[in-house]
Amino acid sequence: MRLAPRAALALRHGKLRQALQAAALDGIVVTHLPNLFYLTNFLGTAGIAVVTADHLYLIVDFRYLAAATELAQSESGAPGVRLVMVERSYDEALFGLLKELGLARVGVEGAHLSVQRAHRLAQTIDAALVDQRDERDQRPGAAHGGVGGPTIVVTEDIVERLRLIKDDHEIEMLRSGARLLSSVARDVLEEVKPGITEQELAAKIDWRIKSAGFERCSFETIVASGPNSALPHAHPGDRRLSQGDLVVLDFGGVYGGYCVDLTRTVAVGQADAEMQRVYGAVLEAQTAAIQVAGPGVKASVIDGAAREVLARYGLAEAFGHSTGHGLGVEIHETPRIGPRRESDAGAQAPDDTIEPGMVFTIEPGAYLPGWGGVRIEDDVLVTAQGAEVLTRVPTQLQTHGFRRD
Amino acid sequence: MRLAPRAALALRHGKLRQALQAAALDGIVVTHLPNLFYLTNFLGTAGIAVVTADHLYLIVDFRYLAAATELAQSESGAPGVRLVMVERSYDEALFGLLKELGLARVGVEGAHLSVQRAHRLAQTIDAALVDQRDERDQRPGAAHGGVGGPTIVVTEDIVERLRLIKDDHEIEMLRSGARLLSSVARDVLEEVKPGITEQELAAKIDWRIKSAGFERCSFETIVASGPNSALPHAHPGDRRLSQGDLVVLDFGGVYGGYCVDLTRTVAVGQADAEMQRVYGAVLEAQTAAIQVAGPGVKASVIDGAAREVLARYGLAEAFGHSTGHGLGVEIHETPRIGPRRESDAGAQAPDDTIEPGMVFTIEPGAYLPGWGGVRIEDDVLVTAQGAEVLTRVPTQLQTHGFRRD
Repeated sequence: MRLAPRAALALRHGKLRQALQAAALDGIVVTHLPNLFYLTNFLGTAGIAVVTADHLYLIVDFRYLAAATELAQSESGAPGVRLVMVERSYDEALFGLLKELGLARVGVEGAHLSVQRAHRLAQTIDAALVDQRDERDQRPGAAHGGVGGPTIVVTEDIVERLRLIKDDHEIEMLRSGARLLSSVARDVLEEVKPGITEQELAAKIDWRIKSAGFERCSFETIVASGPNSALPHAHPGDRRLSQGDLVVLDFGGVYGGYCVDLTRTVAVGQADAEMQRVYGAVLEAQTAAIQVAGPGVKASVIDGAAREVLARYGLAEAFGHSTGHGLGVEIHETPRIGPRRESDAGAQAPDDTIEPGMVFTIEPGAYLPGWGGVRIEDDVLVTAQGAEVLTRVPTQLQTHGFRRD
Repeated sequence: MRLAPRAALALRHGKLRQALQAAALDGIVVTHLPNLFYLTNFLGTAGIAVVTADHLYLIVDFRYLAAATELAQSESGAPGVRLVMVERSYDEALFGLLKELGLARVGVEGAHLSVQRAHRLAQTIDAALVDQRDERDQRPGAAHGGVGGPTIVVTEDIVERLRLIKDDHEIEMLRSGARLLSSVARDVLEEVKPGITEQELAAKIDWRIKSAGFERCSFETIVASGPNSALPHAHPGDRRLSQGDLVVLDFGGVYGGYCVDLTRTVAVGQADAEMQRVYGAVLEAQTAAIQVAGPGVKASVIDGAAREVLARYGLAEAFGHSTGHGLGVEIHETPRIGPRRESDAGAQAPDDTIEPGMVFTIEPGAYLPGWGGVRIEDDVLVTAQGAEVLTRVPTQLQTHGFRRD
């Protein structure tokens, strides 16, 4: 598996340290594993990083110590990394390290640290626990623990905001992954035939994804046939594909740690007039969204372009999800390509301005309960010129598998 | 996919309501998806339940509304369920529902609610946020927000403790899953041969797991060959299996929502004397642990039985992980079959007393950096009589694939 070179990690650390400085933080505890991978190339089911102005402390347990040591010494090792081994528990190792470092203001990842761990951390190092948002709004927030001692600041999306714009290594992985997924998709479409169950078809897809060189599927493959295709996130079941079905196939792979994602909808046997009408509307919506996507545009404008087309066909109500989501180390990340939300108590729904280096899906759909559904999804990279479609699979309605362009 | 019948859910709800009463709670917010599945049979990538004395409110978004409605009306629907649809965000829907319900003391899942969401929830409903553990210890904790208003109590493992003892439906799923995984394992062992890469072998295993009728793999399949087998959690890479390798194969499936897990270690070509010695030690350790497992025994005693054997072979240092973990809706759950930990600031390490109805793995290993490793893992169900081994695959050292008993 190809990993980002040390120099790329160094640039990411530099940007993170700038963000820490801007938030007046002496360090940050990184508990979200995708962020940990982004900063260190470390892939494990557990691990915590503490990033300070000078070092990156990587806390791992016995299971990963050998792998983490080897990684640290390789050309993909994180610069300035110091390994800390868990003796008894991650909590103990983390709390001990923070006591030792004695940072005055340390950030934690608010969306990825449990309230339980946050409270115990605050108690253990006798720190006040404050919310960055309350600080910004100068609201009295959740102050807790020692006054005059260290402060734990509940931060939001600090590393995620860095991940929004992909660097060269990331673009290369996403581009290669999308190319590979496109060739998988061409083969997969040949497998659609009457009589096969959704589960069997899903297993074939997963096998092709892994055989093609992906590390794993980027999410649970969706094969939704007939009335099931009206459920945007259906689980593949034992229903057999039959004449007159629409079948939604939604699958993806992880390549070099980066997620790609693709959906095609096909008809088994003949597509009737209503299928063709709905399919045509979704395809037109997708094309409209891709055309409007480019630097300087708001994410909600891309979403609106798709939504407007569907409304014209009387399908506004049939399209209940967002038009797309960012791709990267996670299968769903920023930017969210969705409608603008008015002030929403508690929830953040940023309407990002699109910039070069962003990678996201464009995947409008229409779902009619009892009848079926259609979704068409591609992955795009934003460049200075507009949106480059990374996945390359014909989009016209296929019947009974696959007819070449 | 077979789901628990409504009557089984009703029993689970009854036990949960008893636990709430014992903690003087009027309700609990369930944000951990495995707990949500356990209480409702709902399978989604998002969803929140609020369980009160009379009802179970299930908050879902557009993507899952049709599936959740159908489930609610089926014989596997949760009794007393009320669906709440997300209009804009889960936070908004949850906070709105809690305002409406006006519960005086509501629990949240401390390990599965982010500190960010907890703080926003407390602000939005103007509640005090307290930690159940602080209440118990009568320590001044993280009090926050309105005095005299509602209280949000950060709880620990309330639903998880119910899941510790499996009910009849769960035992049936785990038993069937283990039987199915054993037959997959017999086929998989035939595939081990020189020249195949770890990744190719892992893809074959995953394909067999899905073809056999599992919903999905229960974790990322491990194929670790030669020196890689010394890494307990290695990722399958492009290394080709060759003569003289030890190969650790660790894989599992999810059946009816329940996870099973199995490991075998095989030798490619001849096993030399040292391989046979280490393998024999691990097998003896596993047998000792299985024999001691039964009702009334402490988890640490089972772990100690394995550890003692390995120490006798001079392999104490080579065995760094726990002897086993509980199986159920999650691949790692309670009970933890590990050494007893002395008081450990912040971290919980309960030493459970084993009871009938518990299901867990027994999987000692020995890992020698540079040389290789051995792990042997089976799944056991505790009955009144002792431990019933659910997985049935020969355990003697296989060379070049598989030799029948």
